This record gives sequence, structure tokens and C-alpha cells, in this order.
Amino acid sequence: MREVAVIGIGQTPIREEWEKSLRLLAGEAVLASLADAGMQRADGIFVGNMIGGSANNQQHLGAYIADWVGLRYSEAVHLETACSSGAAAFRAALIAVASGELDSAIAVGVEKMTDSPGSEITTALATAADANWETDQGLSFVVLNALLMKRYMHEHGWTHEDFAPFSINAHANGVHNPNARFRKAITLEAYTKAALIADPINLMDASPMGDGAAAALLVPADSVPHDARYPVIRVAASAAATDALAVHDRKDPLWLTAAEKSAQQAYQQATLTPKDIDLFELHDAFSIMATLSLEATGFAERGQGPRLALDGEIRPSGRIPIATRGGLKARGHPIGATGMYQIVEVIQQLRGDCGQTQVENARVGMAQNIGGSGSNIITHIFKAG
Amino acid sequence: MREVAVIGIGQTPIREEWEKSLRLLAGEAVLASLADAGMQRADGIFVGNMIGGSANNQQHLGAYIADWVGLRYSEAVHLETACSSGAAAFRAALIAVASGELDSAIAVGVEKMTDSPGSEITTALATAADANWETDQGLSFVVLNALLMKRYMHEHGWTHEDFAPFSINAHANGVHNPNARFRKAITLEAYTKAALIADPINLMDASPMGDGAAAALLVPADSVPHDARYPVIRVAASAAATDALAVHDRKDPLWLTAAEKSAQQAYQQATLTPKDIDLFELHDAFSIMATLSLEATGFAERGQGPRLALDGEIRPSGRIPIATRGGLKARGHPIGATGMYQIVEVIQQLRGDCGQTQVENARVGMAQNIGGSGSNIITHIFKAG
Repeated sequence: MREVAVIGIGQTPIREEWEKSLRLLAGEAVLASLADAGMQRADGIFVGNMIGGSANNQQHLGAYIADWVGLRYSEAVHLETACSSGAAAFRAALIAVASGELDSAIAVGVEKMTDSPGSEITTALATAADANWETDQGLSFVVLNALLMKRYMHEHGWTHEDFAPFSINAHANGVHNPNARFRKAITLEAYTKAALIADPINLMDASPMGDGAAAALLVPADSVPHDARYPVIRVAASAAATDALAVHDRKDPLWLTAAEKSAQQAYQQATLTPKDIDLFELHDAFSIMATLSLEATGFAERGQGPRLALDGEIRPSGRIPIATRGGLKARGHPIGATGMYQIVEVIQQLRGDCGQTQVENARVGMAQNIGGSGSNIITHIFKAG
Repeated sequence: MREVAVIGIGQTPIREEWEKSLRLLAGEAVLASLADAGMQRADGIFVGNMIGGSANNQQHLGAYIADWVGLRYSEAVHLETACSSGAAAFRAALIAVASGELDSAIAVGVEKMTDSPGSEITTALATAADANWETDQGLSFVVLNALLMKRYMHEHGWTHEDFAPFSINAHANGVHNPNARFRKAITLEAYTKAALIADPINLMDASPMGDGAAAALLVPADSVPHDARYPVIRVAASAAATDALAVHDRKDPLWLTAAEKSAQQAYQQATLTPKDIDLFELHDAFSIMATLSLEATGFAERGQGPRLALDGEIRPSGRIPIATRGGLKARGHPIGATGMYQIVEVIQQLRGDCGQTQVENARVGMAQNIGGSGSNIITHIFKAG
């Protein structure tokens, strides 16, 4: 397969969008990615979205968005893998271009959550868990993550306060991201005193919902025109793996096997190891997921994720910077769009466009998007130059 | 890209399935396709489904189904393009194998519609139309198709009775398909006297919903083991095209431009013309869609689809047999599964396994799956031997 480069990116600020439909949001991100690349159109569009069918009464997002952005008659499909739908869309666009099936493709993630009743959104999000074996028993996502966090604290001897650096780092970085949902730093006290949601998870452990869209334009690397502004950003690896949908059915609920498998495949494709990765946009939907991700992908020993955070190694200046634009926690987590925000942010870092949270000499960046409580995990690695 | 063959197929009977979840239905079809090929597993699974999120409280169907069929840890994604979700899943599986990204893949379409309240299903199906410009104005699918049929009759001078052969042929063929929802022949009188749904569409113009799953197993053609039972069935072409989602926004509502474009691309890929196609599983969700499909794909002149049917040319012995296993009208139309039923049926024909509705010397078969009222259309051509 041929090498692929990302030559355009676009995103909308994550916030409450009462005046814009899914179509308008996605359109803004897509048109921005085309403008960024100086292109008028692409051969196909791949849309990541999870709850449009119930929250916005709109499925069929391929055709819905394609026509709006001037791509009527183009191939257009909608991919869904719960919270990793964005990365699934990117991976489909990537394979289409890498294989030669298309000569250019746009991947866009979009979600619009805030103008539906909260109960409807909770019901819609619960469809990412196992309807037969989890949801029907009353398990929601936050409860599943609370059970994991409690067990993790018990197994490895950490206190709730030990997780504070994940949230503090994310919020500190989000301050400098104009597209972040929350642009306010938080203190250790704010973290420890936040309202409890599901013991031990409190409001500062959980990522906020939001409305937003992010897009990227992919073309064969050998067709990239010279752009004096930026180095060429190549896709160095793409891998996806699943695990049992129901958490209770996994061999070890505290080990994200799908994260490990997709990351290992990605490292192998790119001929890299964790120490070659300059920054890692991971899926910190909850603090516990940030910890488990760092361990499964080889950045921390088992049970030692909080140590990395407590030592300051996850900050932009640390050994493995995460959530450099605010992460899910502060940038926000518009479900089906999140994976595309992660990818767009990695590309911003590799372009050197991240101002105060720029990772120095960033050349290799990784994005990992998690669907469900660890059941569908997609890893991408990007290289500059 | 490398050539791909379909070496295993599986399907469940389309009916009301009160005892089986989406997982069980999809699992039956997938495991049947593996058994048919004598294989234990595949590298990835691509799921076509439209309304699982609302009708069955289950999204995230990739991981949901992968684990169940023994493919835990494999790549697994869900694709959605409304009523053409099945073909979208097949096309994604095809590109994954053709490109070398995977060495084997399963495409499965599944839908479970009958144990939800009818009003919920109507609402869920309406998400295939344009929420902003159609659904919010009260337009349902049957109404959109009724407007098209009425205009078509006016423009081209046909009466309602002239469409009867589409329904009569589908039901006559469905009698011999053990998996068909309706296995009962109908008369001209039954057609003309059927209850009106939305003038001029009556119950015999409309395809029935149902629960079901159909699957196919794809591998590189050069890896196919010798199977004395069947010729090798190769995928000769695959193409997808969209059109404006809202019907009023198309240049000509009576011409399926996306059907024409995807068929033309497919003919070109396979170096074939319509006269080389031995049978055509088209998307007869409504009689008017069968007519428009035949015209847009080059089997009938504009406005002359009913003539082909009245002349008997759409029967298994005719010039271009359609709905050879009952079509959407009699086999049934479990939305996200339909595209995969069409493909499985084409393969049954090319294997010579269709008994009384076998098309003689069938060597080249085409399947075309329509999403929305003509807004996302995917065409596949298969060749035997």
C-alpha cells in the first residue's frame, strides 16, 4: 500500500451549539480541512458519529454531509465503534487512500449532544455497553469505570488523590486551546473536593460532553505539494483491535488488551517503540482510562500509571506528554468526534502549532481512541518530515 | 489491489425473531459463512446495521458481534448508510482484503425490527431521510416514494396496474426461497386490490420489514482452496456513489443518478456492459424503486422499466432476471441486512444453487443496494469461475 499524508485539518470549538445542526458542524470542520490544504474537494468522505440517530434524528450521515460540503455523488459512509467512531472513520479513509481505491479522502468526526434531554443522551451512550449483559442490569458507563477505578486502587494501593495530576494537567493544557470546552486551570483542592458521581469517580475524573466536529484530509504522500509552512505529516501506523464488550467477560478487567494489541501492531508497523513517541493523545474519558492506557501501551509498568503522572512526566515538558490540548477531560468529549480531535491535535503538535503547550521537537505523535469501556481501540502514529 | 473471492455465505430466515438478539442473529449468519468455507476465523468483521441503536438499544456492533463469533481481539467496525448499510459493510471488507490490510474478512448485515413498537421503527427509519428538510416536514419514506411513483406515472403514462409484474415476479420467486419472509405467490387481482398505504403505493408495492442476518466471507482469490462443489466466485467490481439526501434537491427526482454512477463505475471496473449481466438483485423496496433502478443502470430506457416487467423479461428466464429469491418485496427488507442478502443471493445463483428460480448458465451477477430514497447507492458485480 502507498504511504498517506494528512495535508489539511479543521475543527470547531467544543461547546453548546444550539444554532447549528450536525450538518453545519461537520461542514465547518470539513471545509476548514479543505481550505487548510488549499483543495476544493476530495473523492470520498468517512464520517464518525455515534448517537446522531437518537440524539439528532439523523442517521445516513455520509450522504447528509457529503452534499453539504460540495461532494454530491462522492462515496460517503458513516462508521460507528462507540467512542472510537472518529478513529474508525480515519482508519477507513486511510485504507481507501493507501490502497489506491480513492486518491483523496476526508475523515470527519461529529457529535451534537447538548440540545437533547440528558436522560436521552444517557440512554444513547449506554448503547456502547453490552445491552444484554450490562445495560439491562443497570450498569452505566460511569459506573463501569467507577468499578474499575475502585478495583485498581485496591489492587495497586493508590488513593483517589493520586489521580489528580491527570485532571490538573489536562485542564492546565486546555487553557491554551481555543477549541477546548473548559479553558480553566484547576487546583488539587478543586480535584479532591469535586462532587462525587459514582464512588470513587468525581466530576474532575470525568470528561464533559459537548458539540463539535473535527476533520482531516488524506492524500497519497507522494502527491503532497510543497508547503513552506509545515513539514509533511505522514501516517506511520494504523491498527485496530477489539475485546469482549462486557467488562466482566475479560480475562483481566484492569488490563486494556485491545489497547495493548493495537499499540503493539502500530509500533511494529512504524518500527518504533514507546520511547520514540514524543506525545500521546490518549483517551482520558475518565482518569482511570488514562492510567490503564499508559500501562497497556507500554509507557508505564502495570499499576504504575499514577506514578508517571505524579512525577510530572505527562506534562508537555515530560517524558510522555498527554492531553496536550486539554484531552477529553478539558478539551471535551463529543463522542463520535473525539478520535478526530485527537488526530487533529497530534498533527497540530507535529506542525509546531501548539504555542504554550507545544511539545519541543515533536516528530512522532500517537493517538489512541477507545470505544466502550475498552472494547474497540484504534491506534494511529504520525510522523513529521 | 489483489483480486478477492467470496468463499463462504450464511443467512437466517427472515421472520419475526422474538427469542433472538441482534447478537444471536448475526452470529448464526457469520458462523454459517465460516462453516460454508470450512474456516474457523477471519481477521476482521464489518457489520452493516441501521437502527440497532434505537430499536435494540445496541450500537457498537463490531465488538458486540466479534466476540460472540470467536473473533475477540479482531478488528470490528459498524458501517451505516441507511438501507444500503449491508453493501457498505461488504465494500469495507472488500477493500480491507483487496488492499492487503487483512487476509480475510467477514461482512455481515443484521437488523431486528419486529419486537419494537411500530411507531419507534417508523421514527428510526425516518432518520435515513433528511431530518432538517424532509422528516421535520412530515415526509416519511413511503410518502416520498408515493410522490415519486405518482410523478412517474404522470410523466410516462403508466397506470398503477402496469407495476404489478414487479410484485408478482418477486412473490413467485420467493415461494422457492426457504429464507423468504413471504413464500406465497400473488395474483394480479391481489396486487390491484391490496390496501392503499400512500396513493398510489399499496401494500403490494411495499417491501415488508423483518428480522434477519446475512454474511459473506472474503479472502484473496489466489488463496482459495479447491472446492469441487462450486466455481470460485470473484468480486469483479465495487462502486459507491451518493446524491442529495433530500429528494427535492436533486436535479431530476425520477432519475437515480447515484445508481447510474455506481453502476457505470462498476461496469468499467469489470469491463462489462448491462448485456453481460445474467441476473440483477436490485433494491425493490417499492415497485417504483425497481423501475428507476432498471433505468438508471442501463437495462431499460428512461420511463420504460414497466415495459420490461410487462414483457416478462425480469423473470428468472427473462433477459434480466431480478428479485430471483423474492427480492425485498417477498424475501423481506431487514434494512441493514438487505444488502448482504442481495449479495448472498447473487452468489447462490452463481453457484447454481437456486433450484426452481435458478437463472440458467448464470456466470455474472450484480447486486445494487440503495440507501435512503436514492441517496447512497452501492453496486457490486460478481463473476463465477
